[in-house]
Amino acid sequence: MNTVSDLQTIERRIAELVEDFASAPDAAGADGTCERVLRATADQAVLSSEGGKRLRALLAVDAYAAAGGDAAHGDAVRDLACAIEVFQTAALVHDDIIDDSDLRRGRPAAHKALGARTGDPALGVGLGIMLGDMLATASVDIADAASRALPNADGIVHAFLAMHREVEIGQVLDLAAALRPLDDPADMAATALNVFRWKTASYTTIAPIELALLAAGASPADARARALAIGEPLGLAFQIADDLLDVVGGNTGKPVGGDIREGKRTVLLADALERATAGERDEIVAVYGAPTRDDRQIAKIIALFESTGAIGRSRGRIAELWNRTRDAIRGLGLAPEGEALLTAACARFVPTVR
Amino acid sequence: MNTVSDLQTIERRIAELVEDFASAPDAAGADGTCERVLRATADQAVLSSEGGKRLRALLAVDAYAAAGGDAAHGDAVRDLACAIEVFQTAALVHDDIIDDSDLRRGRPAAHKALGARTGDPALGVGLGIMLGDMLATASVDIADAASRALPNADGIVHAFLAMHREVEIGQVLDLAAALRPLDDPADMAATALNVFRWKTASYTTIAPIELALLAAGASPADARARALAIGEPLGLAFQIADDLLDVVGGNTGKPVGGDIREGKRTVLLADALERATAGERDEIVAVYGAPTRDDRQIAKIIALFESTGAIGRSRGRIAELWNRTRDAIRGLGLAPEGEALLTAACARFVPTVR
Repeated sequence: MNTVSDLQTIERRIAELVEDFASAPDAAGADGTCERVLRATADQAVLSSEGGKRLRALLAVDAYAAAGGDAAHGDAVRDLACAIEVFQTAALVHDDIIDDSDLRRGRPAAHKALGARTGDPALGVGLGIMLGDMLATASVDIADAASRALPNADGIVHAFLAMHREVEIGQVLDLAAALRPLDDPADMAATALNVFRWKTASYTTIAPIELALLAAGASPADARARALAIGEPLGLAFQIADDLLDVVGGNTGKPVGGDIREGKRTVLLADALERATAGERDEIVAVYGAPTRDDRQIAKIIALFESTGAIGRSRGRIAELWNRTRDAIRGLGLAPEGEALLTAACARFVPTVR
Repeated sequence: MNTVSDLQTIERRIAELVEDFASAPDAAGADGTCERVLRATADQAVLSSEGGKRLRALLAVDAYAAAGGDAAHGDAVRDLACAIEVFQTAALVHDDIIDDSDLRRGRPAAHKALGARTGDPALGVGLGIMLGDMLATASVDIADAASRALPNADGIVHAFLAMHREVEIGQVLDLAAALRPLDDPADMAATALNVFRWKTASYTTIAPIELALLAAGASPADARARALAIGEPLGLAFQIADDLLDVVGGNTGKPVGGDIREGKRTVLLADALERATAGERDEIVAVYGAPTRDDRQIAKIIALFESTGAIGRSRGRIAELWNRTRDAIRGLGLAPEGEALLTAACARFVPTVR
């Protein structure tokens, strides 16, 4: 398959599916105010769905082809892949409310945009919560409809709902991890990696592979085991690489050090705390313990991430996790072309080690 | 079927299903903080699920029996009925965040309870959003699992997701309706009734009947048409009766006039505005236009609801809607016992006209 045309098809199809689900032309009755707000919400559903890199959808589509899935079911698999992207948007809309973020993908976060459009920030939050709910329902509806043309229809819907649940639990773990005291770095990296497993790897790499293998006819147990073997290390590597890019630069559209400014509990932070001298540790704890962090403090923390070896350790972690993913792909015993396709689809998640 | 034992079985089964879904004993890894917060969230999922009147689940169970559904599928139908209740809890958890409500069913609202338990109100809101998401996913998962033992499995999952969507759209309409100017009462009652149709009747009366008829083997088109004919007027009557009880008393556990205190856009308010003299209308608009309303103002508004005839009009609306529901039930051509059972299940939603 050709990734550029896949991407364009996926992008167009997501917009179409979301518009179909979120717009309800007759629902407002004769009430102009209701019609206007409902239209604004449906518009925002489509806007919030735009601009993703679609790595997850492409992984599903490529894993399906690599596993020798029937090309006649290509449209259903593409819709299933789109459903994962729609679920991501749902999760991001709620995340942005929880974090009170202003921006997402370089544009106003959904609840902020809805607040601006209705002239009422509190209403924007209410509509944003509903928009996230609506997109979450849409994602299941799209996956459910797609599953009917595929083998393992019941298994696909079940796996899709299990993915929802894992991300929801992962978000609870992430919120909890922020309560952890910083002056006790033991196991802090393990906690961060565990959050990555549930909140990120679940839907980023495990579910796309699992759903693709189910659609290609694998048994639910096999699809799950293989998706975990490939996708769990890959999803962790993806998140560590993403956090690393935030510090060393290269993430287009994001200022360097954004995670530090937000005080995010990353593996980098955990590794730095673990390797720091007592004095350095006190310095890091003081900076992260304050309500805000300025440019000078961010530069200082980045320097400490470097000097303590935390950055090198993250690079090592990524390389080691990527090796596990490659070994697991090889273990599938695919034809060479299929193996190359799946390896390339997975490699997109860890650009720094390519 | 015996409603008391049905109720106890439903109550126990909801707690069991929610605990199974929300608790994830291994998810926290070795992190005590994560484990504690995850446990608090799962506990709250069960707590928030308690205390409902279960009218929706009982309607589904009774409609299934009335339609001659196979008793061998009783457990699956009961689980499907529980799924509707779990969805309601999900919707209420998010509603309470949107309205910033302190209480639900006489206990702290989920996000307030989670804020108190973690000692951080903002964290409580974040966890509450996730709890609502988790319960929404749980509801679909329960319905999906139950559907597999039933006829029309695909149709049941589809109808369940359509119910989610209607309530989400209904909540957007409700938020929008609050923006409507009060000095223009034309069509305001129609707008309020339209909100009731989407936000309340959808999952309260239409979906329980539709899902029951699907489970009993009716075609999706028939199940939908019949559920709408019976459930749409019944759901409207239910909400009008609920709003009326708020004003004339009788709703145990709620102080009289709570809706007026909150400035809620009810059919009562719309009818009062439409029938008021110009002076009375100005008075109502002034009271509802203020940020808060005191006991004296609430008493004055209730007096105006009475003197303008709005309360009488609500009673008339309920009687007329209930007649439509009874006619639709008769139109089903059920055996006398089935018709009596379904009529009794529906009558629970409109206690004032029984």
